[in-house]
Amino acid sequence: MIDNKILKVVKIGGEIINDSNTLIKFLESFAKLTCPKLLVHGGGKLASRLAQQMNVPVKMLKGRRVTDKDTLDIITMVYAGKINKNMIAILQKNKCNAIGFSGADGNTVLAKKREENPVDFGYVGDVVSVDTSSIEMLLLNNITPVFCAISHDGEGQLLNTNADTIASELAIALAEKYEVELYYCFEKKGVLANIEDEDSVIQNIDVKTYKSLKKNDVISDGMLPKMENSFHALEHKVTKVCIGEIYMLFDEKVNRTTLNL
Amino acid sequence: MIDNKILKVVKIGGEIINDSNTLIKFLESFAKLTCPKLLVHGGGKLASRLAQQMNVPVKMLKGRRVTDKDTLDIITMVYAGKINKNMIAILQKNKCNAIGFSGADGNTVLAKKREENPVDFGYVGDVVSVDTSSIEMLLLNNITPVFCAISHDGEGQLLNTNADTIASELAIALAEKYEVELYYCFEKKGVLANIEDEDSVIQNIDVKTYKSLKKNDVISDGMLPKMENSFHALEHKVTKVCIGEIYMLFDEKVNRTTLNL
Repeated sequence: MIDNKILKVVKIGGEIINDSNTLIKFLESFAKLTCPKLLVHGGGKLASRLAQQMNVPVKMLKGRRVTDKDTLDIITMVYAGKINKNMIAILQKNKCNAIGFSGADGNTVLAKKREENPVDFGYVGDVVSVDTSSIEMLLLNNITPVFCAISHDGEGQLLNTNADTIASELAIALAEKYEVELYYCFEKKGVLANIEDEDSVIQNIDVKTYKSLKKNDVISDGMLPKMENSFHALEHKVTKVCIGEIYMLFDEKVNRTTLNL
Repeated sequence: MIDNKILKVVKIGGEIINDSNTLIKFLESFAKLTCPKLLVHGGGKLASRLAQQMNVPVKMLKGRRVTDKDTLDIITMVYAGKINKNMIAILQKNKCNAIGFSGADGNTVLAKKREENPVDFGYVGDVVSVDTSSIEMLLLNNITPVFCAISHDGEGQLLNTNADTIASELAIALAEKYEVELYYCFEKKGVLANIEDEDSVIQNIDVKTYKSLKKNDVISDGMLPKMENSFHALEHKVTKVCIGEIYMLFDEKVNRTTLNL
């Protein structure tokens, strides 16, 4: 264990990315966290907006987006370019030294293009391995890595990878050296028992509760991969996983959902 | 001096970026260079192409492009996103561990937005200072930094900065610790005495020759900043500056223009 310090791996997505004022406020607070930290961001709606502006049609298969060549370019431009670099500039303003990463940088996140059968989702990658050597070097020098949700296949091809998965895989790999806590931040206060009621946060969910919630369709489609990634992380030495609003990072008393095995 | 090794700072631009086959071949060879190395790239025509596709008009003032908010977004997406991350993925394929940088990453290139008088060129930055600490850390660990031509003002604002200037400023800053050679690579064999004759390379140019060439309009507009940056670098401890084709990097015998004070 390095320095016996807790490393916080924080994933932000949804409205936190879409609204630049929310993002700026979040980054101001995030910059003040004194523990070692790593940020992972999704792309919000910005990629879809750019696709529209460029007249690149959104292709769907079985209800899921297909990442064709043009879409991969758009994602790379928006996630690794516009969003990531603006976030780095704002963190620097707030005296948090940061370096932006895709999974290709430092060979950190190696993935395999998903099989084309039964459904060809295009340039989508499933994580194969994580190399944390360059991340550890930065953390030891008080530099914060900021990851976008792009991986590579080691053969020169970038791949679109779910940001929740990137966050959990990085957390798991870093748990070999650090005590790691993983935070999934979005616009809701946690996992809700009633999607209509913002205050119906389920405080604690263990594997048994999860199965029951899933069976009774209480958990919505978008929440399923977040939950699967959470339990996967807990099964692999990550000590704490929370889902909720960004404020949970800065105040222990803020409501949230805590996952347990 | 670190390890008494020569550090090569290489800037590529123009057709090397525009043609993906040329770029891939270059990166394959570049990856094989065993000395410490740093790459700086321009954006070629890709940014203009995206602007056209997005119906963002190119604004010109006094014959030069104006970087308005939309154009800065496009440049950030294309340079730091699409071009930089694809280059990193190709370098990784060729077993060259690399990390992509803008000047905001690691707080490496701090710039000041150019004065709005007499001409407001928009979000264009002139380099104020260079912090090489994170670059040195990577080089010592055999990781190659790859820079796009974007800086930041330390107040959260990204800025468009000439790639030739970024290369010379990085070379100068690193010359405090390394013996640095600076290579400006483009599609021509060097500075040409006759722009119509590809083989009229001027082998050596010193300050005196430069003044005379400039006076007699032998040097074209695009070459002037490259030359100014070259002499600026030589005046600040950079030991060698060459202008020519990419092949000059891999073979001492390849024709080129060498600058001297």
